[in-house]
Amino acid sequence: MRRIALVAATSLFCAGAVLGAQATETQPAERATLEKAFDASIQPTEMRDWMKILASEPNHVGSPHDKSNAEWILAKFKKWGWDAHIETFEVLYPTPIHEALELLGPKPFKATLQEPPIKGDTSATAKDPALPAYLAYQGDGDVTGGLVYVNYGMKDDYDALQKLGVSVKGKIVIVRYGAGWRGLKPKLAQEHGAIGCIIYSDPHDDGYAEDAAYPKGPMRPPHGIQRGSVEDMTLYAGDPLTPDVGATKDAKRLKISDSPVILKIPAIPISYADAQVFLQGIGGQVVPASWRGALPITYRVGSGDEKVHLLVKSDWSLKTIYDVIAMMKGSEYPDQWVIRGNHHDGWVEGATDPLSGQVALLEEAKAIGKLVGTGWHPKRTIVYTSWDGEEPGLLGSTEWAETHQAELKQKAVVYINSDSNARGILEVGGSQDLEHLVNGVADAVTDPETGVSIGERMRAKLRDDALNPNARDKEQAKAVAKMAADPNRDLPIEGLGSGSDYSSFLQHLGLPALDLGFGGEGNSGGVYHSRYDTFEHHSRFVDPGFVYEAVLAKTIGRLVLRAADAELPVERAGDFAGEMAVYLGEVKKLADDKREAAEIQNADLHDNIFALVADPTKSHGNPTALLPVPKFDFAPLDGAVDRLKKSAAAYDEALAKNGAGLPADRLARLQSLMQDIDGTLSSDVGLPGRPWYKNLIYAPGSLTGYGAKTLPGVREAIEQERWSDADRYIKLTAGVLNAYSDRLDQATAVLNGT
Amino acid sequence: MRRIALVAATSLFCAGAVLGAQATETQPAERATLEKAFDASIQPTEMRDWMKILASEPNHVGSPHDKSNAEWILAKFKKWGWDAHIETFEVLYPTPIHEALELLGPKPFKATLQEPPIKGDTSATAKDPALPAYLAYQGDGDVTGGLVYVNYGMKDDYDALQKLGVSVKGKIVIVRYGAGWRGLKPKLAQEHGAIGCIIYSDPHDDGYAEDAAYPKGPMRPPHGIQRGSVEDMTLYAGDPLTPDVGATKDAKRLKISDSPVILKIPAIPISYADAQVFLQGIGGQVVPASWRGALPITYRVGSGDEKVHLLVKSDWSLKTIYDVIAMMKGSEYPDQWVIRGNHHDGWVEGATDPLSGQVALLEEAKAIGKLVGTGWHPKRTIVYTSWDGEEPGLLGSTEWAETHQAELKQKAVVYINSDSNARGILEVGGSQDLEHLVNGVADAVTDPETGVSIGERMRAKLRDDALNPNARDKEQAKAVAKMAADPNRDLPIEGLGSGSDYSSFLQHLGLPALDLGFGGEGNSGGVYHSRYDTFEHHSRFVDPGFVYEAVLAKTIGRLVLRAADAELPVERAGDFAGEMAVYLGEVKKLADDKREAAEIQNADLHDNIFALVADPTKSHGNPTALLPVPKFDFAPLDGAVDRLKKSAAAYDEALAKNGAGLPADRLARLQSLMQDIDGTLSSDVGLPGRPWYKNLIYAPGSLTGYGAKTLPGVREAIEQERWSDADRYIKLTAGVLNAYSDRLDQATAVLNGT
Repeated sequence: MRRIALVAATSLFCAGAVLGAQATETQPAERATLEKAFDASIQPTEMRDWMKILASEPNHVGSPHDKSNAEWILAKFKKWGWDAHIETFEVLYPTPIHEALELLGPKPFKATLQEPPIKGDTSATAKDPALPAYLAYQGDGDVTGGLVYVNYGMKDDYDALQKLGVSVKGKIVIVRYGAGWRGLKPKLAQEHGAIGCIIYSDPHDDGYAEDAAYPKGPMRPPHGIQRGSVEDMTLYAGDPLTPDVGATKDAKRLKISDSPVILKIPAIPISYADAQVFLQGIGGQVVPASWRGALPITYRVGSGDEKVHLLVKSDWSLKTIYDVIAMMKGSEYPDQWVIRGNHHDGWVEGATDPLSGQVALLEEAKAIGKLVGTGWHPKRTIVYTSWDGEEPGLLGSTEWAETHQAELKQKAVVYINSDSNARGILEVGGSQDLEHLVNGVADAVTDPETGVSIGERMRAKLRDDALNPNARDKEQAKAVAKMAADPNRDLPIEGLGSGSDYSSFLQHLGLPALDLGFGGEGNSGGVYHSRYDTFEHHSRFVDPGFVYEAVLAKTIGRLVLRAADAELPVERAGDFAGEMAVYLGEVKKLADDKREAAEIQNADLHDNIFALVADPTKSHGNPTALLPVPKFDFAPLDGAVDRLKKSAAAYDEALAKNGAGLPADRLARLQSLMQDIDGTLSSDVGLPGRPWYKNLIYAPGSLTGYGAKTLPGVREAIEQERWSDADRYIKLTAGVLNAYSDRLDQATAVLNGT
Repeated sequence: MRRIALVAATSLFCAGAVLGAQATETQPAERATLEKAFDASIQPTEMRDWMKILASEPNHVGSPHDKSNAEWILAKFKKWGWDAHIETFEVLYPTPIHEALELLGPKPFKATLQEPPIKGDTSATAKDPALPAYLAYQGDGDVTGGLVYVNYGMKDDYDALQKLGVSVKGKIVIVRYGAGWRGLKPKLAQEHGAIGCIIYSDPHDDGYAEDAAYPKGPMRPPHGIQRGSVEDMTLYAGDPLTPDVGATKDAKRLKISDSPVILKIPAIPISYADAQVFLQGIGGQVVPASWRGALPITYRVGSGDEKVHLLVKSDWSLKTIYDVIAMMKGSEYPDQWVIRGNHHDGWVEGATDPLSGQVALLEEAKAIGKLVGTGWHPKRTIVYTSWDGEEPGLLGSTEWAETHQAELKQKAVVYINSDSNARGILEVGGSQDLEHLVNGVADAVTDPETGVSIGERMRAKLRDDALNPNARDKEQAKAVAKMAADPNRDLPIEGLGSGSDYSSFLQHLGLPALDLGFGGEGNSGGVYHSRYDTFEHHSRFVDPGFVYEAVLAKTIGRLVLRAADAELPVERAGDFAGEMAVYLGEVKKLADDKREAAEIQNADLHDNIFALVADPTKSHGNPTALLPVPKFDFAPLDGAVDRLKKSAAAYDEALAKNGAGLPADRLARLQSLMQDIDGTLSSDVGLPGRPWYKNLIYAPGSLTGYGAKTLPGVREAIEQERWSDADRYIKLTAGVLNAYSDRLDQATAVLNGT
């Protein structure tokens, strides 16, 4: 990294010596002055005070405090000199009218479904009512059936359940939070024939096993409940009734019963205090070791004899959401937009999620306003956004992105997102041609705990991760650590899946995007989406002193300022090409591993291995036979990645050599070629079965939800045994990579004047 | 396997056609008749009745019931026509006089150290007193200090503790059972400067997390305690005062304080009911995730502020142990001994451990006696042994082996061991040139649960293990599964470490040995070494109906009969050579992995990675720098293994081709060459730092205890950064393998008449 950084700095410095209508980058010294002035505005105590106000009452969609927060935020933007307004949308947002969950039989029990207030905490003083425990976009119902425990309720768990000889057909499943996105749990339950789904927070995952429970420590107390959305965002994000278009008043809407992203079975979240009674009440065989949580019980799968009654009835009316949009016009390129966003709605008071990121965003906006007040102007237009309705399904950002998609595709340079923030180490994901931009900033911000740059600390983290004996994928961790230890390379950043407001920009519109936050030391997981995600909790356990909110503001502020002021494109193609080569290697290895696994499993099935090893005193079943894996023709992707590497090297070299001092006409042409180069990575066809997702490089996994799948058309086709899709998306993905290379080659020609 | 088995059967059949003083194997039909007659004697109800008698009172060393059990067993042997006697030794066997363990400070607590009786269970009716909770050969002491939790108390845990910046110097450690041999826990604590050691049974490992607690289910109840030995058997087994020689009355003895296998610090085992109070009482930082047990608490490392008082005072007098030795003289080769053993002492009533194996041994002895009663005689002498004092340190078997070592090295053909037994699948380890013998037997015994042979079921298990996502070493599991799926290969058996009576035979005397048992379905782990390992528990949860005790008797009975009657050597060299090639590959990979790990870790230390990623609000420390790993010259071992493969192939081929009908003089020469061929695998030098262990192929790991280390001189030298030992033992180990090949070549020459 350092070597590249030095080269870049040198070229920037040279650029400064060239006058006139040419690429004239801000000089390092000038930039340092600007950023120093920016930093001087960042006040932790101010962010603390703002959080206290914004988190004083529940602020979910439709709550009075959510609306008043939007208005408060709007007023701040205006006060700081931004051209700001509120844009509203009308979205489907169900809220519960009646809920019940009870264990029937000889020892009946009614789940409390309540989070008691905690003394000394805003949860005990808020006047607005909190939403009860519920899951947005579950399917209302009134069902009674046997109970089956399915661990995290992910695909692997159903495979294991099948080997235990247990079915969930006609049953209610109880699963724990973790291992994948919440919404997949009831979806998979439904697909397997379950009639209802209970999701609980096991103390193993965010309770006392991790640390003391709140208020003694940061973790989830016995009655803490994780609310959340179960909208099927693997198909599309945003309002369930208006895919592809903005949920304006007059938008054409699907019927609720026709929306594919709304569940058909009832689902409810519960606490571990409640869950323990249900789990203790069920029989059947003991679970596999990896299914055990931290409750002091013997976890069992359930015999099906124990009956449970689950009832959920909701108000399915439309609600208004309030996005705050603020613009600071660019002096040179007003039609090039650097967009920055963080949502303002929470599930209850939402101190950490989302207000920790929101107050950093506000602090940045204030600082930018102040800079403008002193006469400075960004070259590009800066757009600050404060989204509503992220929690139920990225509603505010998605509806805005869909409404303005034509303009955004034309004008957006980058979308930079944040959300929850905590004390710790930088975590960053996004479009990997922006790695170099991120690195420059990460090297320029000092970590308050160690005194080194946040980039150096992140690099250390990636190197240390490879030593973790519990790393999920040791080979991958080792590969990343090797990149992080290479001083000749930018620090790698992760591909993005879903789970926050970048999704519609990156994956639906195909725009470059980044998502940043700090974490790993302060702990907010234990109160996530509960009544206890309060100002007091955040101040005590997540980021005491709001130190890392300040670091976040300084980090993202720099990204915004540099993206807004850069004359030359901020992309570095070599980083991107390197990552694509790694991903292609992973996908090929996946195919080989799957092929071997299928061969072994088929031989085992043929030889009756699974029945022979089963304990005959317990039920058991054979796994579904894996399909034999063909040899895929990866040649198109091999060729595309090879070409990309060459085109990228040529472009990066040309940029370093000829970028500085580029004549104005060629600079304009270069900017125009590179501004929407990431758009070449999308295809109108979109991904198989989910055409809303246009980006063929980055997607949320259809069976992981949050986690990113890179080269998703190919990777998921192989994972899910869709061989013809694999062949087809090898070609399609090669096509978009070639389009990216084409664009690079054109840009290189402009740079080299050939 | 099947192909080889057919070839062998054919050659045996041919042999039968040759008359006179030649190799005349028992014909398959004749053998089948004999084994059928043997099986007819095996009566589960009889074994059940015997266990009820033997397990009716505590039967630890020195208890009245232990002695009377030996006399009862002796009487049985005599009744069945065996030439039997009791051989006694005088061994150091401490028993506790006074013990105390208490948490001091504001909330003082005294550990109960008691296992309450359970109604309906022998534990409530036994008249002999049970030994209290204690650890044999801990070091008496009266200490007070801060408490530190160190997970399983193994080497990796101390490495992790160092990274947490916590030391155990001057502290009392509390560790949980599991992950390695009990005795290493206080030993490592002592080496790290601790002044005392508490070992407890976490419900994660054998309590309610696994299944319901006894008496509702098989697992450890809250007050269950695992007693056991902490003699440092990694140095030598047997009486601590008489290494290398038998502990006869007049033996020369070490002073107790000079015995290197007795601990210097006090140690005590406790229940999880007691442990929870201690663990809840300590502060400090939260443990790494893999250190968490299943108690409903936040596991912490300990701040050192919480003081604990530990006192242990023992009676250190000598006690008498009673080995029962029974002989059935061989008709043709009376000076060739097939030895079979299982211990009879337990920690309390010892129903599963050791009486489940003991009653199978007795049933075999009865059946053999009956066969002899009908006029049949084994060609070789069969020696049945019932050991005393296994629990404190393999005392009975080791002292006997040491006393009779000259005779045993001359006469022993094989030692076949068993110990605890349970419902399930065959588990077998031992000298890998006996794989073919084991396979022949495993194919001949039917599994009562599945109707296939126990060999086929074991093969299925090895194949299934490779699919286990939680397998410790996936590559190794895959390699074993591949062997198990290969119909042209014998089912592989494991190398042996320690933990039962085979150790002195295999590893000190260098004799071929096998250890067999069934398990994986019946569950005795939860009452292991506790007062609840009773007849009732075994009958309900471990092997209802004594079905698998019967299968064990049929399996080992066949091994004994076949080894006693085989004219031709039972070894197959190809199996052994194949395993050695696998182990050599592992050792080379180990060196490469260690080299890479050291390079990465040293770079990380150089770049201060560990400090940079640490949370400054918690203590932390750097790991000890790994030594750079040189390139070892494996050429001697490569050459030895290559040669072994060739010599083995030639021998096996010659045996198959020319074994049958071998003239008497050549047969005698062949027998003489092959009978002690395993002795070539030992070296008088023994292993580095522990010369009692002579075998250079199999040893218990010096840092795992029970687990086997194959090619231990080389493997452990690399693991433990003793580079010059690695070089030296590459040559020494190559030397013993070459000696084995020399012997094979001589045997091949005899077979081929060249």
